[in-house]
Amino acid sequence: MEDEEQGEWASKAWAHLSSVRSLTPLIQCITNFVSMDLTANTLLSAGASPAMLHSATESPDFTPQVHALYINVGTLSDDWLPSMKVAAELASKFNKPWVLDPVAAGASGFRLKACLDLISLRPSVIRGNASEIIALANASFGSSTKGVDSSHDSTDAVEAAKSLANSSGAVVAVSGAVDFITDGNRVVGAQNGVPMLQKITATGCAVTALIAAFVAIDPSHALEATASALAVFGVAGEMGMEMARGPASMRMHLIDSLYGLDQTASWTRLPKFRYI
Amino acid sequence: MEDEEQGEWASKAWAHLSSVRSLTPLIQCITNFVSMDLTANTLLSAGASPAMLHSATESPDFTPQVHALYINVGTLSDDWLPSMKVAAELASKFNKPWVLDPVAAGASGFRLKACLDLISLRPSVIRGNASEIIALANASFGSSTKGVDSSHDSTDAVEAAKSLANSSGAVVAVSGAVDFITDGNRVVGAQNGVPMLQKITATGCAVTALIAAFVAIDPSHALEATASALAVFGVAGEMGMEMARGPASMRMHLIDSLYGLDQTASWTRLPKFRYI
Amino acid sequence: MEDEEQGEWASKAWAHLSSVRSLTPLIQCITNFVSMDLTANTLLSAGASPAMLHSATESPDFTPQVHALYINVGTLSDDWLPSMKVAAELASKFNKPWVLDPVAAGASGFRLKACLDLISLRPSVIRGNASEIIALANASFGSSTKGVDSSHDSTDAVEAAKSLANSSGAVVAVSGAVDFITDGNRVVGAQNGVPMLQKITATGCAVTALIAAFVAIDPSHALEATASALAVFGVAGEMGMEMARGPASMRMHLIDSLYGLDQTASWTRLPKFRYI
Repeated sequence: MEDEEQGEWASKAWAHLSSVRSLTPLIQCITNFVSMDLTANTLLSAGASPAMLHSATESPDFTPQVHALYINVGTLSDDWLPSMKVAAELASKFNKPWVLDPVAAGASGFRLKACLDLISLRPSVIRGNASEIIALANASFGSSTKGVDSSHDSTDAVEAAKSLANSSGAVVAVSGAVDFITDGNRVVGAQNGVPMLQKITATGCAVTALIAAFVAIDPSHALEATASALAVFGVAGEMGMEMARGPASMRMHLIDSLYGLDQTASWTRLPKFRYI
Repeated sequence: MEDEEQGEWASKAWAHLSSVRSLTPLIQCITNFVSMDLTANTLLSAGASPAMLHSATESPDFTPQVHALYINVGTLSDDWLPSMKVAAELASKFNKPWVLDPVAAGASGFRLKACLDLISLRPSVIRGNASEIIALANASFGSSTKGVDSSHDSTDAVEAAKSLANSSGAVVAVSGAVDFITDGNRVVGAQNGVPMLQKITATGCAVTALIAAFVAIDPSHALEATASALAVFGVAGEMGMEMARGPASMRMHLIDSLYGLDQTASWTRLPKFRYI
Repeated sequence: MEDEEQGEWASKAWAHLSSVRSLTPLIQCITNFVSMDLTANTLLSAGASPAMLHSATESPDFTPQVHALYINVGTLSDDWLPSMKVAAELASKFNKPWVLDPVAAGASGFRLKACLDLISLRPSVIRGNASEIIALANASFGSSTKGVDSSHDSTDAVEAAKSLANSSGAVVAVSGAVDFITDGNRVVGAQNGVPMLQKITATGCAVTALIAAFVAIDPSHALEATASALAVFGVAGEMGMEMARGPASMRMHLIDSLYGLDQTASWTRLPKFRYI
């Protein structure tokens, strides 16, 4: 029974990846300076077409052409926030899915409010670590965060994620040793990945961008597409880890593995999903 | 006859690279956030000295000291455009060659106008993909572009490149399976490189920066210096590809190969040029 | 006698690295766009927790929570300078150590004045190349600089470093073939590292960030912590160089080596320090 469910999820994940490769969705990325290189290379390796265009002046021309929008607040400033809002509003208006990475949501009052304002513009998916999701669900800052790293296990944040999903209408994903994905009703656990991913900057940002690409090609199944993206990235991480000697070689092998993933590999490294 | 022409181009390419290595030209780069790391490392590996200084406040002191200026509009915004214009004007005033990468020129009206305004400040070289060059030659946007990737073959853009070269006074290079370089009169084709370069973000940006370094040391032969830079980068790509397992290891081997290129390698991997 | 001194320095360096690994200090980084990826990965590999938050709007909430602040002026602009000053003032007010990398200090009047203004906000440590330290000590620009690369040997800058340390109250480190570290009175030389580090962009920025992490866990011994960070990074560079084929593979092996450093390696690659 469980094996059958696993097999269905695995089939879905590979179907999603195949669609990204054949449809090369165009993903507008308004993301932080630290992650731009890894994010663009992650999307390219998965078969998507990234475009790091952030200016509010050109989004009215550009956002209507894209297949999905990705917004990440990592290096947020007063200058960039209005651009994020303009693009998010355009995405909503033109029925483009958009995905939010609320990096360090609890690190300041400014950042928390910015994230909550963006969430009111109706993202399709929100992906964060446990501390970020808890900060957003509680609309509070300062108590549960240490910079950009989580001080909670992902299991601590499942209820917060359900609550945030229900209040926002978004699918909410919590990354951790187990990734949890919920639409407020269903909860899926995904267990691929390796701890070394935490030692490489911007892997969280990169996987959120990958979610945007997967949701772009299956917007009416955001929960499943999100789970697929997390599993595919995790499987690439597992394969990369076998060749890595440290975080920097891991980063290289991760991207190479994502590019080279095939379904044969999938049968030996079945994405590990289940409903909770 | 053709072999002889090939040999002359190859000799030129290696002479240009040797000059960059011995003269270490200082290249001011005002480029997009995604490409800064790869661009700086490409220039360093080729022997040039990159400086990512973009502020309009300091360009009056700094631009007169550089050997060439590189401008790339990838992550263009209202804030950065005036800085680009100030630096381009200074470069022209002080007779420094400057090189433009019109990333995604056709993606918005704002971006197209910005590129055309920059072109009116007389760059020495413009390098783009086919869709970008066609958008600039036609001064139109929206129809021929998909984000930052080209939706045309480079051969489709040869006439547009000649037209843009004639109207702007710049050497125009179109990247693709074959790279074309034209001054509006002569057209050179360069055939080095591998498709995997398209799967690594910012390789186009990086090769345009390399063009700036090559033009810096031979400003009166911008056509030849541009062809040399494209061929050298392409040869490094071919060598890198032999060791690569995917896009990320390719990126590493590309830079290592560029750093290690020697003339012995050149005789077995002769840059593939010809006049069209 | 000298061996004994060497052994003491080596013990200190490994004690510092062990503390960073166990205490994972949170380091706020306001740094240039080119270096963000390498800087974050350097800090993660050493065991610290980087946070690239730069907005003046959120520093009042965030800076009081961090263990140290790192400021780097590489891609300085009128927009970012006030953020740097706000964060530096907060660090001073809350007794957090902060470290300055005065990239290309002599490249323009604007940049020199910005660096001098920041120095008046009392950094714990200033680390630059010889040309930068000379420019700051002389409060002059233009004569001694070539973009971001040094045109002086580090030995030329020892007197300038002592003078700057005395006038600023900061520990001053000059990078080069030999690194010199001084508090204006004592001068320490550290000789680890390899020339290839100069061919990788942002290695200077990255080691300054590492200094911030080391000073974070031993703020009352800034001279020793600075020397330790430079030696640890240099040892990782030496280990990386043995596996490297060029600058890009060097960058990878450097980070992997920093992550994997253990005390056994230290006895064969003793950090090379001495008082001058």
